[in-house]
Amino acid sequence: MENFFEKLTAEQKLETERQLEVYCNGVQEILPEAELKNKIAKSILQNQPLKIKLGLDPSAPDVHIGHTVVLNKLKQFQDNGHLIQLIIGDFTGKIGDPTGKSAARNQLTDEEVKHNAKTYFEQFSKVLDMDKVDLHYNSAWLSDLQLEDVIRLSASITVARLLERNDFSERLATGKPISLHEFFYPLMQGYDSVVLESDIELGGNDQHFNVLMGRHLQEHFDKEKQVVILMPLLEGLDGKEKMSKSKNNYIGVDEDPNNMYGKTMSIPDELIAKYFSLAADLPVKEKQQITAQLENGTMHPRDAKMLLGKTIVRMYHSAAAADKAEQHFKTIFQKGAMPDEIPEAKWKGGNKVLITDLIAEIGLLSSKTEARKMIANGGIRLNGEKVSDHQLLVEITDGLVLQAGKRKFVKLRLSTGK
Amino acid sequence: MENFFEKLTAEQKLETERQLEVYCNGVQEILPEAELKNKIAKSILQNQPLKIKLGLDPSAPDVHIGHTVVLNKLKQFQDNGHLIQLIIGDFTGKIGDPTGKSAARNQLTDEEVKHNAKTYFEQFSKVLDMDKVDLHYNSAWLSDLQLEDVIRLSASITVARLLERNDFSERLATGKPISLHEFFYPLMQGYDSVVLESDIELGGNDQHFNVLMGRHLQEHFDKEKQVVILMPLLEGLDGKEKMSKSKNNYIGVDEDPNNMYGKTMSIPDELIAKYFSLAADLPVKEKQQITAQLENGTMHPRDAKMLLGKTIVRMYHSAAAADKAEQHFKTIFQKGAMPDEIPEAKWKGGNKVLITDLIAEIGLLSSKTEARKMIANGGIRLNGEKVSDHQLLVEITDGLVLQAGKRKFVKLRLSTGK
Repeated sequence: MENFFEKLTAEQKLETERQLEVYCNGVQEILPEAELKNKIAKSILQNQPLKIKLGLDPSAPDVHIGHTVVLNKLKQFQDNGHLIQLIIGDFTGKIGDPTGKSAARNQLTDEEVKHNAKTYFEQFSKVLDMDKVDLHYNSAWLSDLQLEDVIRLSASITVARLLERNDFSERLATGKPISLHEFFYPLMQGYDSVVLESDIELGGNDQHFNVLMGRHLQEHFDKEKQVVILMPLLEGLDGKEKMSKSKNNYIGVDEDPNNMYGKTMSIPDELIAKYFSLAADLPVKEKQQITAQLENGTMHPRDAKMLLGKTIVRMYHSAAAADKAEQHFKTIFQKGAMPDEIPEAKWKGGNKVLITDLIAEIGLLSSKTEARKMIANGGIRLNGEKVSDHQLLVEITDGLVLQAGKRKFVKLRLSTGK
Repeated sequence: MENFFEKLTAEQKLETERQLEVYCNGVQEILPEAELKNKIAKSILQNQPLKIKLGLDPSAPDVHIGHTVVLNKLKQFQDNGHLIQLIIGDFTGKIGDPTGKSAARNQLTDEEVKHNAKTYFEQFSKVLDMDKVDLHYNSAWLSDLQLEDVIRLSASITVARLLERNDFSERLATGKPISLHEFFYPLMQGYDSVVLESDIELGGNDQHFNVLMGRHLQEHFDKEKQVVILMPLLEGLDGKEKMSKSKNNYIGVDEDPNNMYGKTMSIPDELIAKYFSLAADLPVKEKQQITAQLENGTMHPRDAKMLLGKTIVRMYHSAAAADKAEQHFKTIFQKGAMPDEIPEAKWKGGNKVLITDLIAEIGLLSSKTEARKMIANGGIRLNGEKVSDHQLLVEITDGLVLQAGKRKFVKLRLSTGK
């Protein structure tokens, strides 16, 4: 790739550097950074937007703020006039797991794929301007590939290279089977970049191998190679595992303001700075200031979390909703009612539990009968909300606070079995 | 598979055992033999021929007696009324080597494939009744496969299983690249058996992994599994390497009777019994007798080779041609003219050499000028044939005998560089 940066005017160079600084902030890795700079320069020189690709798994359309780490990065590109390419990986979704071993990889129908995509887009619209996004379903080109194409594609990569992917090498070493078809998933993802001529592909840090494959295949097909931007993975409310729906340690972008705020208040203190960095849309300098204040003790973690909660609610709802959620939290938890330290109970049971069973099992009250009585008297609260139905099915989340009367509190901690 | 053998009459059982004995003779391995017996029994009970598959590489249509080891085994099945399935592997032939690294894997055009297939069949007709053979080009089904089919096919096999193939495991261990597309060749060969519902697949002993793949894939697709019959590999005239055109150590089935006979006479003594076993159509008992006589010294190796040469010429030409070739050999080499022991010269040069250069280089005469003179006088013979053209381009083969005048002989030995 020729050097475009050196052809720019002084002003254009400054603009290139400005964009580069924005894009580099908060990332885990950029491969390679020099090419990113030159691509930005080319885009400015030729007045052509860059194409920024993100691949989406159509089987899990619930978007939480773990996903928004990547979306927020995409938005920075969109804000500077670049083109976002969203690829729905419907081709593999429709195949499912051909070995039939993975319950998680169900075969999806056309309708399910469309429905899930729509669900994605509705949620994405809280971050991105979806009218300006370039949408693709990769079955459009993958379902046309024939054995001959597959052979030519496969000839570009060695078995040893594929075995370098961490999970493959581990499984081979420990005798756990790798089905040959699994080698195709990175190839297909890479081929998407060939077809769409993407300039940049974004992914979580666990996508390292797969997004680099796009770069490799573009080179094989004599295309300009994409730059890879890897974002850090955000831990969930438990502070341990990557945020995900299956671990029930997430904050969904569709959740109501009070839940969103309350869940944010439940994250461990040591994650506050990371959440600000990856999940909040505040200016970089303000984030740095908060981090410094947390470190030197001039800001109380709870105040930082309240600011974080308010920021997140504002991002996915509105400034008014954020104010209201803060007010709600203060009323319920802070006006003397809620102690600073709440005893915790480990929860190993199911994801949805009857409120009376839950109260009895964690020992908030001594029996289900007592629980029913207290609900009837309006004495039970869930995250500060009064419970009126004794047949309520509670959706368990990490950090959920149960309250009986004015004094008794228990905070649930999910046991991840580790 | 149910037990068909036990449902047979006593007479049918005898016929099953008779066929089984014929098929088992001379093989390297049958996987598994019990199933072969039961398949024969089923065929007799249901009066349905078995389908016996052989896959052919369309890029090398020169048939030599190394190939006939497998053809002779096919003929035994054909003689008992079974159906021979010949598969021209034109699909991969037309792709060639997609990495572009192997000069040996040129891309073939449709015309070249058809021409090569025709060449095969003409030569095969010397062993098999080609009117009764079932011919297929595997592009007929492989070119219809789409990525989705390929993924489902690949899901049936693990990477670890593929790496069990000797050449793959060696290359991975020594850091030599394996391109991913190479994993497909065994899968495609196996898929041919699925489509054709083959009962038995024949192959050389080096095809062990590939023909077992057919068995594996048939099981995956809920078909009756094929039995695998592996034949020993026949060493070429040098007695070391597997017979092949590229090593120039072969006896082609299209060669003229005198060449065929003469080349047979040049094989090392220790291979005589193996050539009888694998390349001659004599009754098993006669072969065993010859082997025994060679071992106890009651038969001179040269007499055994003369019988072998006569047999091979008869097989590919006629009894009359065999008599004539024997006579020719006796006239030229035996009537006092040719000594029992001929000095040998190692040949490291090209495959085609000017007769005068050849004579000078191996030192049969001291210069090219002398060689030209002696050719003019009719004093130079090649394998007993007088040479009249001093610009003759000699095709070098292992065991080629050059003669100058009545007394001077040199036998060429190819240096394989090992």
